[in-house]
Amino acid sequence: MNGENLNSVAEVLALIDGGVEAMPAVPLSLEAAVGRVLAEDVFADADQPAFDRSAVDGFAVAEGNVAGAYDIAGEILPGDNAPQPPAAGRALRVSTGSAVPPGSAIVMIEDAEMSGVRVTLKRAPEARFIRRRGSSIRAGSRLLTTGSRIGAGEVAVLASVGIAAIHAIPRPRVLHVTTGREIVPCDASPGPGQIRDTNGPLIHALLRGAQAEPLARCHVDEGIESLAGAVMRSGAFDLLLVSGGSSAGLYDRTSQALEALDFSILSRRVNSRPGKPLIVARRGRQWAFGLPGNPVSHFAAFHVFVARALRRLAGRPAPSGVWAHLGADLPGITGSHETFWPAQAEFSPVGLTVSPLPWLDSGDLKALIGVNALIRLAANARPVAGQAVEVILCGSDFPFA
Amino acid sequence: MNGENLNSVAEVLALIDGGVEAMPAVPLSLEAAVGRVLAEDVFADADQPAFDRSAVDGFAVAEGNVAGAYDIAGEILPGDNAPQPPAAGRALRVSTGSAVPPGSAIVMIEDAEMSGVRVTLKRAPEARFIRRRGSSIRAGSRLLTTGSRIGAGEVAVLASVGIAAIHAIPRPRVLHVTTGREIVPCDASPGPGQIRDTNGPLIHALLRGAQAEPLARCHVDEGIESLAGAVMRSGAFDLLLVSGGSSAGLYDRTSQALEALDFSILSRRVNSRPGKPLIVARRGRQWAFGLPGNPVSHFAAFHVFVARALRRLAGRPAPSGVWAHLGADLPGITGSHETFWPAQAEFSPVGLTVSPLPWLDSGDLKALIGVNALIRLAANARPVAGQAVEVILCGSDFPFA
Repeated sequence: MNGENLNSVAEVLALIDGGVEAMPAVPLSLEAAVGRVLAEDVFADADQPAFDRSAVDGFAVAEGNVAGAYDIAGEILPGDNAPQPPAAGRALRVSTGSAVPPGSAIVMIEDAEMSGVRVTLKRAPEARFIRRRGSSIRAGSRLLTTGSRIGAGEVAVLASVGIAAIHAIPRPRVLHVTTGREIVPCDASPGPGQIRDTNGPLIHALLRGAQAEPLARCHVDEGIESLAGAVMRSGAFDLLLVSGGSSAGLYDRTSQALEALDFSILSRRVNSRPGKPLIVARRGRQWAFGLPGNPVSHFAAFHVFVARALRRLAGRPAPSGVWAHLGADLPGITGSHETFWPAQAEFSPVGLTVSPLPWLDSGDLKALIGVNALIRLAANARPVAGQAVEVILCGSDFPFA
Repeated sequence: MNGENLNSVAEVLALIDGGVEAMPAVPLSLEAAVGRVLAEDVFADADQPAFDRSAVDGFAVAEGNVAGAYDIAGEILPGDNAPQPPAAGRALRVSTGSAVPPGSAIVMIEDAEMSGVRVTLKRAPEARFIRRRGSSIRAGSRLLTTGSRIGAGEVAVLASVGIAAIHAIPRPRVLHVTTGREIVPCDASPGPGQIRDTNGPLIHALLRGAQAEPLARCHVDEGIESLAGAVMRSGAFDLLLVSGGSSAGLYDRTSQALEALDFSILSRRVNSRPGKPLIVARRGRQWAFGLPGNPVSHFAAFHVFVARALRRLAGRPAPSGVWAHLGADLPGITGSHETFWPAQAEFSPVGLTVSPLPWLDSGDLKALIGVNALIRLAANARPVAGQAVEVILCGSDFPFA
């Protein structure tokens, strides 16, 4: 099987970018819609502001009036209707957000001196303290477009036009199956030859960081039938992740189980380190990844490939490239594979810098301590400090996220 | 009140950095601990790997053997105890993760040709395919230290040493009270002079992005007693946010209500645009912010000040500065205040660039469409395209987060 079925990283990324379709939209509450992609255009139901409103606390007088002493004729509270314009020599107390009469001008409270029922305006009244009806948003104008992402700011915009539920693409539901008879739960004491499950908690945290919805996890010891059966017994999912059993060994049953489940295998191996024995498969709109069992392989394959598929399912474009200055030399890379080296990225006044972490191999869990980026290195790279390198920022664990 | 009680942005940031203490740690499950700060050191309970293990699928033979034909004497499955070393002329089938006998060397499956009970090893067996006991982690060594943040990688490390619950600093609980008689719920039709509540959904989304725990929100129309009463009736909180009522108007009751609740007011106004009428207060370990009612003020004050206090409560250091290239000229800033201009940041091969969004004033909700950064501009700045500017990245809405 030398070289057979070995795809480049670019080929697997192109498979994902070209093949993964956005999931159908559903109605979501405003709270559930945060972070999701909009599936409808949003229009303003009314002018914003809906009325001429004061931008400050102060006093409103009729336009054309000057600095000087005025009678306080009353007050407009926020929420009140705009009254008639004040007569000459009279001022109305206003607050930020108060509706103001047509033909008004305003003096800020900081420039007013009150004394009983009189007020002395120390500056000329100005119309610039009034936000005109429709000056920010016109009724009927398009505010948000299909395909845009709903952040906190967009939530405020949706609320302002009276929308409490919206069509958007939901979080992808992800089924995670761990495999292997050597695996014991993380709170158990491993016997000889056994290891604790780290991939379960790792993938759960990664899925949460990627804004996916982790379904109840399950574990199968071995066997194509038990793996396929666990998947069949599970509820609906958009993406399936299988930990372990993805390489070419006799007992690596993931690809056979996926085929038994009517998934088509699109890629069996990818020319990367870590994470070479990566399986990519699809069944209609559902996708599956078989991840090599080691935790560093899991971490890298998740950020390079799985997170990208999750973004596409969620209706988002592939991430744009990020470059950083390499903070230290790395040993030269020998071989035709690309490398994703665990690293720590941080901002400095000169830009993003990325420092490689000590890393032995894909089983070296210690390389995941403090990791928040992966450095992407080409085949036979000779990376030296100061050089610009491509990096993959690792989700919500990134310190400035 | 001209100029009275007006603090610089730096002064208010120093108040927060110097005053806000990390909350006490509590035991958290591994799932709840993601994103939290560790309150204990974590040590390895055993060597990792716990036994000499194969890093590949292949065949193990006794060290010193060469390429050639071997009898397949059996198989070591992952989870099995390591058997005795194979005799001369014999090979044991191994999988990734299998325990291997002392004195073994391995040939990868890719370099082996099987035929019945015989296998031809096409390369010399090598010990480099064996991960030695303790080569990644030594029993008793310190893996994670108090004060470090628990990301997905750290979760895997914790699971590997058998930890299913850990002492860490929980999410800050945040009580949000909106105020103002002009405010109607976002799914209501505003009457004349009324506006819909945008700050409620906005703050909820911002709190989720900042990994805080929003408590049930409440609204009070007006009045010091009703605001103070709503806070007193609420459950325990770590941070209190009050929307509206923070400026110098007669009906701005936030500071008086905070004082009635035994909070000490530390700052009443900050020299920034937007967000000048910002109240900062504390009561023991609890902090409170009075936020000016306009949504852009809310957004900016949250990211500049509130998010920083939340980080400190959660045991995290103040964020380090981020710089970007300004993508377009901005109008010159007139006045002594600092400005936080809504913007869109993105990575390019030359680094982070930030493009200012069109923005009228603090009531101009449209400026929050697509915002993921704030550009920090000094008093009287004359910002020109290409210049390096300080930016505040706006939480989990940041596109690469």
